[in-house]
Amino acid sequence: MALPLVSLGTVALDTVETPFGRVENALGGSGTYFSLAASFFTKSGIVSVIGEDFPEEHLKFLQGKGVDTSGVERAEGKTFHWEGRYEHDMNAAETLKTDLNVLAAFKPKVPKDYQGCKYLFLANIDPTLQLEVLDEVKAEVSLCDTMNYWIESKKDELTQVFERVEGIIINDGEAREYCGTPNLIKAGRMLSDIGDSKVIIKKGEHGALFFHQDDFFAAPGYPIPNVVDPTGAGDSFAGGTIGHLAKHGSFKTEDIKKSIVCGSVIASYVCEGFSTNGVKDKTQEDIQKRYDDFRQLVAFDHTPP
Amino acid sequence: MALPLVSLGTVALDTVETPFGRVENALGGSGTYFSLAASFFTKSGIVSVIGEDFPEEHLKFLQGKGVDTSGVERAEGKTFHWEGRYEHDMNAAETLKTDLNVLAAFKPKVPKDYQGCKYLFLANIDPTLQLEVLDEVKAEVSLCDTMNYWIESKKDELTQVFERVEGIIINDGEAREYCGTPNLIKAGRMLSDIGDSKVIIKKGEHGALFFHQDDFFAAPGYPIPNVVDPTGAGDSFAGGTIGHLAKHGSFKTEDIKKSIVCGSVIASYVCEGFSTNGVKDKTQEDIQKRYDDFRQLVAFDHTPP
Repeated sequence: MALPLVSLGTVALDTVETPFGRVENALGGSGTYFSLAASFFTKSGIVSVIGEDFPEEHLKFLQGKGVDTSGVERAEGKTFHWEGRYEHDMNAAETLKTDLNVLAAFKPKVPKDYQGCKYLFLANIDPTLQLEVLDEVKAEVSLCDTMNYWIESKKDELTQVFERVEGIIINDGEAREYCGTPNLIKAGRMLSDIGDSKVIIKKGEHGALFFHQDDFFAAPGYPIPNVVDPTGAGDSFAGGTIGHLAKHGSFKTEDIKKSIVCGSVIASYVCEGFSTNGVKDKTQEDIQKRYDDFRQLVAFDHTPP
Repeated sequence: MALPLVSLGTVALDTVETPFGRVENALGGSGTYFSLAASFFTKSGIVSVIGEDFPEEHLKFLQGKGVDTSGVERAEGKTFHWEGRYEHDMNAAETLKTDLNVLAAFKPKVPKDYQGCKYLFLANIDPTLQLEVLDEVKAEVSLCDTMNYWIESKKDELTQVFERVEGIIINDGEAREYCGTPNLIKAGRMLSDIGDSKVIIKKGEHGALFFHQDDFFAAPGYPIPNVVDPTGAGDSFAGGTIGHLAKHGSFKTEDIKKSIVCGSVIASYVCEGFSTNGVKDKTQEDIQKRYDDFRQLVAFDHTPP
């Protein structure tokens, strides 16, 4: 039987410094954060690449969470390495170094049993690779992310991806840039119109917006007074959201709203520790607790004003 | 009988340019936007000053909306004039000119029947004047706004205001600046701790947050694809919020949440036109409609994830 969920993303070793500390060569990458977040709700497989230096214990850790790593190729050379710093403003990272290493020549190899999976998530990566994996996996529902670099360098290929997926999950800045408008509401609707996609715009501390035709939903950010390291929050949000959708199977608007709240809960935990520390030991009860908090923090009296 | 609501603020003639047009010497000012927004829910009085050039028709317009203008002094000289421009990013105004004119020597004169009112709102103005009016009005519940200029030039006086009011309504940027932290959750709690105040942080397109002790509430921004001129949105938000509170009398957290949604509705209308055009002809039905929309746009399934 095909997996319920597959992601294409990076598995990385990150060096991150924030006002609260520093980690060197810690487990990171979009595929890692995504599948770890999704693991609260469903099994999933990762299509990615690592180098000879990647610690076996990290793979074991992911496998222990129900993540299938048979799509993670071990290649000659060093693992993709990102080095970044957050200063006073924890909302924006400064990239100090990006060593592509094995990612430079990465050709995604999709295991046979990943084909025909229910959900596919194409994390931020070269849109040419996203298109290849779309073709190969042939999922029932595919969603993608991207970043400013691809908007600027490969807009045509990226537009092809947007046309073909059923869902888009991107940052507010990227949505504004791709659509050429500062108005996020306009941008969300424009993105949705490209391929009649369901669109989620991530706004960091300000939460997330959902757009599809006349449907609109706004989730606030979970209130976190102590953000230790926001690295991976966006991919964890996507992982929690799509993982929850994959668990329940449906891609209907009402279910997406609920899944967005699940994604927000997991992203909030990720921000409270370096690398995967904020989320790796969390339980279903922890998820339920913040899910209930979310209900409270947007609740108001519905009688007429 | 004392008025339910009094505001201290500016009554101005604004020249504003946005990508959607330009108005010259149009009705503006924090007191104007505030009391017009509040007028959907309650009568209120303004303490302010205008010059000899201020058109009588604007006063008549406000009076027609149930605004008491006996606290608006007509002084020798010209009316306070602000000139600003919004370019591509409608979220931030560039101030081109500020002519204080009669505002430079403004000494607030509080009409006798404004004293002992239920609610007092001290819009953004010199904190020394805010303290004087606080002393003179002796309202049951007082709230204040401010701006970066006073945080930088009169922080001690501003802190005295914060200590004495029951509520603070300020922008996200000001909250971060006053508290010296980029984390809005931390900033909201710090502000609330100053005088056990109920704190509302305005975030423009991202909505508003409420803080008091362990209570927290998040309202998204109402989705507006066509922002024409955001001038006055913050003061209109405050006017709608406090006007609704004044109508119902209570300053309890549950009522504040509902009032924040009312304030957000009125602010959303203000953004859709220049000067007061977006809101001046709106009806109770218009308010009700977007209030109902708000319920929908944050609603999600509450069963366990």
